[in-house]
Amino acid sequence: MEERINVTEILCVGTELLLGDIVNTNAAFLSGELAKLGFAVYHHSVVGDNPERLKGALELSLSRSDLVVMSGGLGPTKDDLTKETVAQYFGLPLEMDSECLDGIREYFAMTGRVMSENNEKQAMIPRGARVLRNRYGTAPSIAVSEGGKTVIMLPGPPVELIPIFHEEVIPYLRERSGYAIVSKNVNIFGMGESAVAQRLDRLLTESQNPTVAPYCKEGEVRLRVTAKAENETMALEMCDTVVDEILASEVGPLVYGIDADSMERVLVDLLHEKKLTLSAAESCTGGLIAKRITDIAGCSDVFFGGCVTYTNEVKQRLLGVSAKTLEDYGAVSEQTAMEMARGVRERTGSDIGISATGIAGPSGGSEQTPVGTVFLGISTEDGEAFRRLSLSPKRSREFIRIVSATNAYDMVIKWIKNKK
Amino acid sequence: MEERINVTEILCVGTELLLGDIVNTNAAFLSGELAKLGFAVYHHSVVGDNPERLKGALELSLSRSDLVVMSGGLGPTKDDLTKETVAQYFGLPLEMDSECLDGIREYFAMTGRVMSENNEKQAMIPRGARVLRNRYGTAPSIAVSEGGKTVIMLPGPPVELIPIFHEEVIPYLRERSGYAIVSKNVNIFGMGESAVAQRLDRLLTESQNPTVAPYCKEGEVRLRVTAKAENETMALEMCDTVVDEILASEVGPLVYGIDADSMERVLVDLLHEKKLTLSAAESCTGGLIAKRITDIAGCSDVFFGGCVTYTNEVKQRLLGVSAKTLEDYGAVSEQTAMEMARGVRERTGSDIGISATGIAGPSGGSEQTPVGTVFLGISTEDGEAFRRLSLSPKRSREFIRIVSATNAYDMVIKWIKNKK
Repeated sequence: MEERINVTEILCVGTELLLGDIVNTNAAFLSGELAKLGFAVYHHSVVGDNPERLKGALELSLSRSDLVVMSGGLGPTKDDLTKETVAQYFGLPLEMDSECLDGIREYFAMTGRVMSENNEKQAMIPRGARVLRNRYGTAPSIAVSEGGKTVIMLPGPPVELIPIFHEEVIPYLRERSGYAIVSKNVNIFGMGESAVAQRLDRLLTESQNPTVAPYCKEGEVRLRVTAKAENETMALEMCDTVVDEILASEVGPLVYGIDADSMERVLVDLLHEKKLTLSAAESCTGGLIAKRITDIAGCSDVFFGGCVTYTNEVKQRLLGVSAKTLEDYGAVSEQTAMEMARGVRERTGSDIGISATGIAGPSGGSEQTPVGTVFLGISTEDGEAFRRLSLSPKRSREFIRIVSATNAYDMVIKWIKNKK
Repeated sequence: MEERINVTEILCVGTELLLGDIVNTNAAFLSGELAKLGFAVYHHSVVGDNPERLKGALELSLSRSDLVVMSGGLGPTKDDLTKETVAQYFGLPLEMDSECLDGIREYFAMTGRVMSENNEKQAMIPRGARVLRNRYGTAPSIAVSEGGKTVIMLPGPPVELIPIFHEEVIPYLRERSGYAIVSKNVNIFGMGESAVAQRLDRLLTESQNPTVAPYCKEGEVRLRVTAKAENETMALEMCDTVVDEILASEVGPLVYGIDADSMERVLVDLLHEKKLTLSAAESCTGGLIAKRITDIAGCSDVFFGGCVTYTNEVKQRLLGVSAKTLEDYGAVSEQTAMEMARGVRERTGSDIGISATGIAGPSGGSEQTPVGTVFLGISTEDGEAFRRLSLSPKRSREFIRIVSATNAYDMVIKWIKNKK
C-alpha cells in the first residue's frame, strides 16, 4: 500500500452501455468520489462484454494509470467476465472463497430469495485479492494490487456500487492519495455561459491553480474552482480566494449557492432556516416541482405537498380556480397561475404557494402562447407575484419542465431574501 | 463517402465529466442512435480539457476505429480545444466560415441575446470540413473525413447535440452503414436478474446471433435481443423468433412490453386504448408518480393529475382521509392508502385513483414500518385493492421511490388487463 498513485482511471464494462440502453452514472459517481479523495481521474472508458476488447481495454488502462476502478461484468451470467480478465492479467488463479460464499448465502437468506447455482461462481476470487464486502447484492467487490498497479472491481448496479464504495473502497483508498485536490462549485442562475465567461475572462483564462471551468446545465451555469495542494487545508484556502473574487464580480448577485447540490436543496434549507412552509400547484410541470423538493430527505417539515392539476376541471375542483378566469384568460395565463398559487396555499394551509402553468410541448402551442410559454405564480399572505417565461419552442419538453421548476424555486428564494 | 465503416467509437471531452459533475448522457444517446443506424460502437472514452491527453485520446480512437463521434470542447471559452486538436491531427488549417458566422449571428438575433466576441471564434472551421448546422446554440458541428477516417464533432449540451444529431448527422451517416444491427428489448417486471437468467440459461449462453443480454434497472429486468444481418428486415425477423421464444417461456407472463420506453408509457398507451382516466395521490413518492406519467407528451387526455400530500393534515384537507384512520392505523397503512386512492379518484372525477404512502428513508422508519415499507392503493368504481411493498431498508430513497411508482403503474396495468 505504500506506492503513490498518480493517475487514476475508470473502466466500465457492459454492452448495454455501448448500445445506449443505460447511462453511465457510475463513471460520474466514481469520478466525483475519487476527486474528493484527491485522485486525479484522467480517463473514462467503456467496453462491452467481449473478452478480447475487455482484455485490450484493461491493458491500455494499466499502461497509463496506477489505479483502475472498474464497474460491471461481475454478475452471475456467463457474459460477465471482469474478474476472469483481471485475474488472467495478473496471472492469478481463481479460488472459491468460503467467507465470500457465506456472504452470498446470507444475502439470499436475508432477502428471502432462492439462490441460483450460477451465484456460486460469484464467490470465486483471484488468489491473494482483497474482498470488499457487498451487503447489497451477490457480486463481491474485489481489489487486486500487484507491482504498483491496483485494480478495484465493483458491481454495475448503482444500488450496490454506491454503498460499497462508501463502506469499503474509501477506507481502502484513503491512505493511497498523495496530494489533495479540492473543488468548489459556484452555482449561478439567470445568465448564460458565454456571458458569464466574458465577464470572468481573466479568471477563466489565466488562472492555472486554482483552475476555473464553466459549464451549463438546464438554465444554470456552474463555475468549478479546483485547487491542488499538499494538503486539504491549503487547497481549500486557494479555492476560497477565487470564490470570493467571483462573488465580488458582476456575476456575484446571480450566485445562488456555493457547492449547492441543487436549487431545490438551497430552497429547502432556506425554508427550514426561516421556518416557512410551502406547497405547489402544478400544471405543465406535472409533479416535477414537488418531486424535486421531495427528493430531499427531511423536506416534510417545510413542504406540505400540493396538487397536480392537468385539466381545467381539476384546476377548479382541487384548487378553486374560477371557471370565469379559465374562460376569460385561458389556463396558460398569469391570472390562472395566481389563482392556482393562492388556491394551493389556502387549501393546504402553507405559508407560501407556488404554481406553474404553461405549454411544455412538443404540441399544444398557439400563436399567442407558443410552446415554451410558462406562467409561474407565488402567493403569500403578504403579497403575490408572477413570472412569465418565454423559452425557445425548440427546447425539449424535459428542458421546459426543468427550467420552469427551477424558476419557481428561484422566485421563492428571492421572495424570502427580499422580505427580510 | 464510399468507404465502409466497420468500427465506431465515442469520445467525449470535458473535465466536468472526469470530475463527476455531470453524467455522460451524450454517450448513451449517441450509442443508441448509432446502433439503430447499424454502426457497431466498441468503445466510449472521456478525456478532460487537456491538450495533450485530448490529442492522445483522438489518436488512439482513430487507430482502432473508422468513425469517431466526439462531443464537447466546442464552446466559446479558451479551454474548448476539440476543433483545434482534430484540425491539427488531419493537418488542416482553421479558416473563418462566413456562412457559419452568419448562422451564429442569426442565433443571437433570434434569442435576443448579445453576441460575445469569443463567439466569433466558433465560426473557425477546418479547411474542407463539412459544417453541420446548429440551430440550437452557437457551436457549429463539424464532420471531417480524410483517408478512410471520419470524425464528427458535436457540442456538449444535450439540448444542442440531440437535435443536431437527428437533423444533420443521421442524413450524413445513413449511407455509410455497411450492415444492419437490430435490437429488441423485452421488458420484465416482477423477477430478479439471476432468476430470469437461470430460466433462460440456454438462450443467454448459447445464442450467438441474435445475442441475448440481461440487465437490470430499478426493480426491472430487460433482455436485449440483438441480431446482425445484411439488411434490417432479416435482422428484425431473427430478433422476433427469439422474442417469441422468451414469451413462451416461464418468464413470459412477467413481460410487460417489447421495446417499451418505460412502464409509464405502457400505462398511458393502455389508458388511451381503453379510454380510462387516472389520478394519483402521493405521499412518499412526492410527485414522482405524476411526474413520470407527465413526462409523456399527450398524457393529458388520460391523466387528470392529483395530490401530493406530504403531511397528515394535507391528507385530510386535500383527499378527505379521515382523522380516525390516520389515528388508528397511521399514515403508512393499507387503510390510509385506500382512502387516499378513493379520495383522489372522487375529487378529480377520474375512473381510477392510485396512491402511495410509505417510508422512503433514510430516516423515519420504525420496527413495525421500517424504511422501505410502502402501501399502494387502487380505487375504481368496480373495486379497490392494495399492495404492500417491503423493500430492503438499505436501498436508497431514490430507489424506494422509483420502485414504488413502478409498482403503482403495474397495479393499474394488471387491473385493466384482468378486467376485460
